[in-house]
Amino acid sequence: MALRGNHLGRPLLEAVMEQVARKGAYPILQLAFEHVGGPFAREAPLDVLRVTAPLQRRVWEEADGIITIYSPENAHEGADLSEERQAASQEMLAPLRARTMAMNVPWVIAEWPVQSLADEAGMSLEEYEQFVFDAVLLDWDAEGARMRRIADVFDAADEVRIEGAGTDLTLSLAGRAGSVDDGHLNMPGGEVFYSPVEDSANGVIEFGEFPAVYYGIEVAGARLVFEDGRVVDATARANEEFLVQTLDTDEGARGLGELGIGCNPGIQRFMKNVGFDEKIDGTVHLAVGNSYSFTGGRNRSAIHWDIVKDLRTEGRIHADGRLVQENGRWLGV
Amino acid sequence: MALRGNHLGRPLLEAVMEQVARKGAYPILQLAFEHVGGPFAREAPLDVLRVTAPLQRRVWEEADGIITIYSPENAHEGADLSEERQAASQEMLAPLRARTMAMNVPWVIAEWPVQSLADEAGMSLEEYEQFVFDAVLLDWDAEGARMRRIADVFDAADEVRIEGAGTDLTLSLAGRAGSVDDGHLNMPGGEVFYSPVEDSANGVIEFGEFPAVYYGIEVAGARLVFEDGRVVDATARANEEFLVQTLDTDEGARGLGELGIGCNPGIQRFMKNVGFDEKIDGTVHLAVGNSYSFTGGRNRSAIHWDIVKDLRTEGRIHADGRLVQENGRWLGV
Repeated sequence: MALRGNHLGRPLLEAVMEQVARKGAYPILQLAFEHVGGPFAREAPLDVLRVTAPLQRRVWEEADGIITIYSPENAHEGADLSEERQAASQEMLAPLRARTMAMNVPWVIAEWPVQSLADEAGMSLEEYEQFVFDAVLLDWDAEGARMRRIADVFDAADEVRIEGAGTDLTLSLAGRAGSVDDGHLNMPGGEVFYSPVEDSANGVIEFGEFPAVYYGIEVAGARLVFEDGRVVDATARANEEFLVQTLDTDEGARGLGELGIGCNPGIQRFMKNVGFDEKIDGTVHLAVGNSYSFTGGRNRSAIHWDIVKDLRTEGRIHADGRLVQENGRWLGV
Repeated sequence: MALRGNHLGRPLLEAVMEQVARKGAYPILQLAFEHVGGPFAREAPLDVLRVTAPLQRRVWEEADGIITIYSPENAHEGADLSEERQAASQEMLAPLRARTMAMNVPWVIAEWPVQSLADEAGMSLEEYEQFVFDAVLLDWDAEGARMRRIADVFDAADEVRIEGAGTDLTLSLAGRAGSVDDGHLNMPGGEVFYSPVEDSANGVIEFGEFPAVYYGIEVAGARLVFEDGRVVDATARANEEFLVQTLDTDEGARGLGELGIGCNPGIQRFMKNVGFDEKIDGTVHLAVGNSYSFTGGRNRSAIHWDIVKDLRTEGRIHADGRLVQENGRWLGV
């Protein structure tokens, strides 16, 4: 059981170690000071940085389970790296990502509320802790049943159309089954997600309500134009260069890796923290880059960037032409 | 390159990571919250605890180098474990110890001065930092040459006799060559050490000046009687039970694994910190348990307990009947 985290996550990490120990299993502690960045990422030659250390690779490939506790000292850690080094740091994680994305190992990412994330969310730590616990401590069986009904609607449909501010995008889910994140895998849970048919996305989506955040870097007002499943034009009000460079990481980075539908009723506010933001009830998110192979996705990339679109003020989702959600509220689901 | 430590050692760990990265090597970070103890050591079934986790074992067996930075939060960590669990925790480290003791991997243990160790030494942190730097920042080439001369004296001799308060012990170094710890391997350096001939130690040694300290537990006034290389009687003024139990860890624990001669002129005070204490100029130390195979030692044990005897007030060392050290001062060396 690989247990990833840092020193700030100690209370939760130690509670997990205790439980793992009681089961007679080994917690292989994988602590680092930063989740991304740090002296190695800053100083290693690029061709070393992008290759996973063999001894590390084996831990990721052979561990019976992978638990990650997220509790950064600084929500923007890694932001001091050049784009080249950020991309190489992502490549280094490829064996880990490959294994979790293929779902051939039990894994979970959970957050331990810390000052940096509270700060980032504009809350006191106490308020933020409450927010995290509210998002996490739900009746997950009941939430799962509710999300299953939502997934059934899209499973039965081929074409999905998303309309909203600056947005009119269609894509196909034909032959793809929805996954319900009901908190038994990830924490918090609260989304229904798909790998859209690779060449099906057409139209435009504007992320005007929230910034697109990737490893601490914010891109405000990102606007993506899709043609036959690929981003053919990308602009932004701020940090457009970072957006474009990230989309040029590799061949698959401009592909559409995921459509997710946020369903967590405990999460109403955007926090610049993707594990929570993508689950805001009344939002959808698109991920450019790598798709989950267990959902049928075939797009491969070193990146997987979830970007959240708020549909609560102005938004409609159609499934095979039928209006199923309006302004964040489900209709007949 | 396995890099072991905890969060308190971060400044030194990060400096090392930076250097390793610049050389194009991988620092495999092996951080734990405790150097010994913690939830796993407290909660795991004993038969799991004593077996090294396979994924951990491979890191220790295959890393190209092993650096340990010692900076405990609590100098007595692990002291809450039962003797059984302490022994099992030691067994778990056997693959690491086997590799470093056989010297088939470059390794170093260095200390980063922290509050707990300053406290233990009865100093302020600032004073303690100065102490550590004084012990470490020596002209190691000159120290090495001086220690080489001391080693030559004992290399040329067969029998060594150590006399001191409550002490009269003879042992043989016949056929065994001395190792000079000149700071190019361990930090601080400053000792000349041998694996005595296994069945040669006879007599008594009383450690009345300093406690014997093992994983934070202090045994005051330990007195060991040796017959033909093995401890046949062990008593103490305090914690005698712990002393005896540790000597009963396994078959080899009552054997004599090492005779070390402290030579670091920067270390004059006992600190309850074995990496420094064993190098106090004018002391010797005996280790019961495992011996270094590269010095010709054949005793095998899960323990290696260095116990320091002060010879500065009252002490004599004879090499083949010739007095070579008196009250901690070398004579004609």
